[in-house]
Amino acid sequence: DQDPTYKEEPSGLEKLFANEPERDPSLKVLAKTPCNAEADVKNLETFITPNEKFYVRNHLPVPVVDPECYRLTVEGPGIPDDFELSLDDLKQKLPKYSVTATMQCAGNRRKEMHEKIPVKGLQWQSGAISNAVWTGVRLRDVLEYAGYKMPDYGSEEKFPGDVEHVVFDGLEGYGASIPAEKAFNPRGDVLLAYEMNGEPIPRDHGYPLRAVIPGVVAARSVKWLSKISLSEEESQSHWQQRDYKGFNPSADLASSDYSKSQSIQELPVQSSITTPTIGEDLKAENGFVTVKGYAIAGGGRAINRVDISSDGGKTWTDATLHPPNQSRGRTWAWTQWEAKIPVNNCKEMELVCKAVDESYNTQPDSFDGIYNVRGVLVSAWQRIKTKIVN
Amino acid sequence: DQDPTYKEEPSGLEKLFANEPERDPSLKVLAKTPCNAEADVKNLETFITPNEKFYVRNHLPVPVVDPECYRLTVEGPGIPDDFELSLDDLKQKLPKYSVTATMQCAGNRRKEMHEKIPVKGLQWQSGAISNAVWTGVRLRDVLEYAGYKMPDYGSEEKFPGDVEHVVFDGLEGYGASIPAEKAFNPRGDVLLAYEMNGEPIPRDHGYPLRAVIPGVVAARSVKWLSKISLSEEESQSHWQQRDYKGFNPSADLASSDYSKSQSIQELPVQSSITTPTIGEDLKAENGFVTVKGYAIAGGGRAINRVDISSDGGKTWTDATLHPPNQSRGRTWAWTQWEAKIPVNNCKEMELVCKAVDESYNTQPDSFDGIYNVRGVLVSAWQRIKTKIVN
Ligand SMILES: [Mo]
Ligand SMILES: [Mo]
Repeated sequence: DQDPTYKEEPSGLEKLFANEPERDPSLKVLAKTPCNAEADVKNLETFITPNEKFYVRNHLPVPVVDPECYRLTVEGPGIPDDFELSLDDLKQKLPKYSVTATMQCAGNRRKEMHEKIPVKGLQWQSGAISNAVWTGVRLRDVLEYAGYKMPDYGSEEKFPGDVEHVVFDGLEGYGASIPAEKAFNPRGDVLLAYEMNGEPIPRDHGYPLRAVIPGVVAARSVKWLSKISLSEEESQSHWQQRDYKGFNPSADLASSDYSKSQSIQELPVQSSITTPTIGEDLKAENGFVTVKGYAIAGGGRAINRVDISSDGGKTWTDATLHPPNQSRGRTWAWTQWEAKIPVNNCKEMELVCKAVDESYNTQPDSFDGIYNVRGVLVSAWQRIKTKIVN
Repeated sequence: DQDPTYKEEPSGLEKLFANEPERDPSLKVLAKTPCNAEADVKNLETFITPNEKFYVRNHLPVPVVDPECYRLTVEGPGIPDDFELSLDDLKQKLPKYSVTATMQCAGNRRKEMHEKIPVKGLQWQSGAISNAVWTGVRLRDVLEYAGYKMPDYGSEEKFPGDVEHVVFDGLEGYGASIPAEKAFNPRGDVLLAYEMNGEPIPRDHGYPLRAVIPGVVAARSVKWLSKISLSEEESQSHWQQRDYKGFNPSADLASSDYSKSQSIQELPVQSSITTPTIGEDLKAENGFVTVKGYAIAGGGRAINRVDISSDGGKTWTDATLHPPNQSRGRTWAWTQWEAKIPVNNCKEMELVCKAVDESYNTQPDSFDGIYNVRGVLVSAWQRIKTKIVN
């Protein structure tokens, strides 16, 4: 998820990053320029992640945007040339809409894979994920307002103008696309958000406008959105074409044929333990310890079950789930969970978590079958050793 | 997926099974009454499975139906009391529609799990799956014709009449339901089929009418359909409430709390090798052997990749995929695949296959994390040892 040609802090680069926003000290900075900073997982134990605690994953410098001058360009069949919307247009001419959606980086948990077999990329632990309420306008409404004839979603025909992808470009140079089926789905809930948790969207998260693609890898939720194009093709950006794709475990950088791999859109079912973290002891209370964490599936699928083991995977118990109050197929937010584990006479435990989604997809046991040299799609069972204290 | 209270062939049961259809000798019969017979996997190497080669999984005796007297009852909010449709009504009053969809039993590949840890149920190998073209009428069209106000699918409100599930009852006593979101989805392609591969649907497969729920476990595609009910609740049948659910690997029959587990609807990503089968040698040609098989994901998701190993999982290569020509999110049919593997000087190989779906969900490495005492949802990597002959 980082341009492989990028080298950290070459000379002169500082100037490009002279206007970065301040960041909360709770964030764990993996790279400064561009800013890649994961959340403290202890701040991921509330359903909503406060804006300043939300992980930051930028590909380029944060642009400085004057909201008065800002314009969103929209291009596509049926849309007049040079069609533009100001921020006020978006806020005043289109209905306001909110969606609670979890953003997760394709490289979340990369460090665990790296510790098995080295991979290329920043060493994210479990904090490249956060959850917020996004408020703005529906992409469907914007496209219809711009003049695109929104298709009859049930038809078997091609979409009007043979549109197959919706391409998003950011002011800073990043770009990505999503399939038209997701963009046009009346239950797809794709937003252009100008608020995050009830505040104007912070600069690090896309001020003044971010595409929010619920149920899809965060890399497609383009920040500082400047242009939307309806296209027969995917985005031609580096990040759509030559990054954020999966390969079989034997492919190396040289043999990875990006033209033959599918872009990552929905992510596989995932889970992580947030209490305890590595090196954290657990305190026994009345003979039990409490383990906590999160789980999430791609595509709006709910979490059916989270299985917890305290003996390295020999025996399992169901965690108690705290699912979001979202409807079937639109479960865009994570499910937080906790489990009370009997201590018996254990002095240490090897905790393991794994989740099952509503399609009964499961996480792979190990990294063996999902290894990839870029270290994306890291969804093996998570294992954490802990000491029990009284 | 079989009533645990059922006992094979108690006295008098024969009478109930006096009117079973003849079955093709290619089918491998695991139980006669009711008929449970898997396909010969060599007959699963064509895209469409011929009707007589299609696996049979019945829960009760096959009913004898007079097509002249047959009536489908439809019940729900806005639908007049005693609303019925004859076969001629369905064929003449509603548009004809075809969908190519793969049916897979929840217990497919159960024997492999059983060989690791014993499970309860018939010992299906990889042949409890087949693919056909189903032709009939859309469930949506039938419900609208009957008087139900088909909802605006994009609305956030509840469906009219607070309908949450569509319940199907079969003439023989079987029953199941699907979520209303699937039933009402204009791209969900739920059919009531009266033809299978261009012929009247055979008795073993639901004559004269079968619900066909693409992308969902076959157990919800109710045969010999007699009644459709729009309901706030799932089907109250044994098979919806007390079967076809998953549990954590430590749950036994006694501790499996069916009221807390979710009904299986979409199945997890799956794959199997059809050449070679167990005990079959592979013939080397020009230094290569050819391995074949199938892969399928739940919910209309496409197959992104099938990884093949000939060294037990140490190294992997991509199989060549033959995906169905179906649109995004409506990939209801399986993807057949083949791989040419260099023999080098191998005399034997341990072949392994595993698939990745378009959400990058993967199959678990082993049975350890997916074990369940009923032996459903068997989606671990498949391993087959073979000898190489010249
Ligand atoms: Mo990312
Ligand atoms: Mo089944």
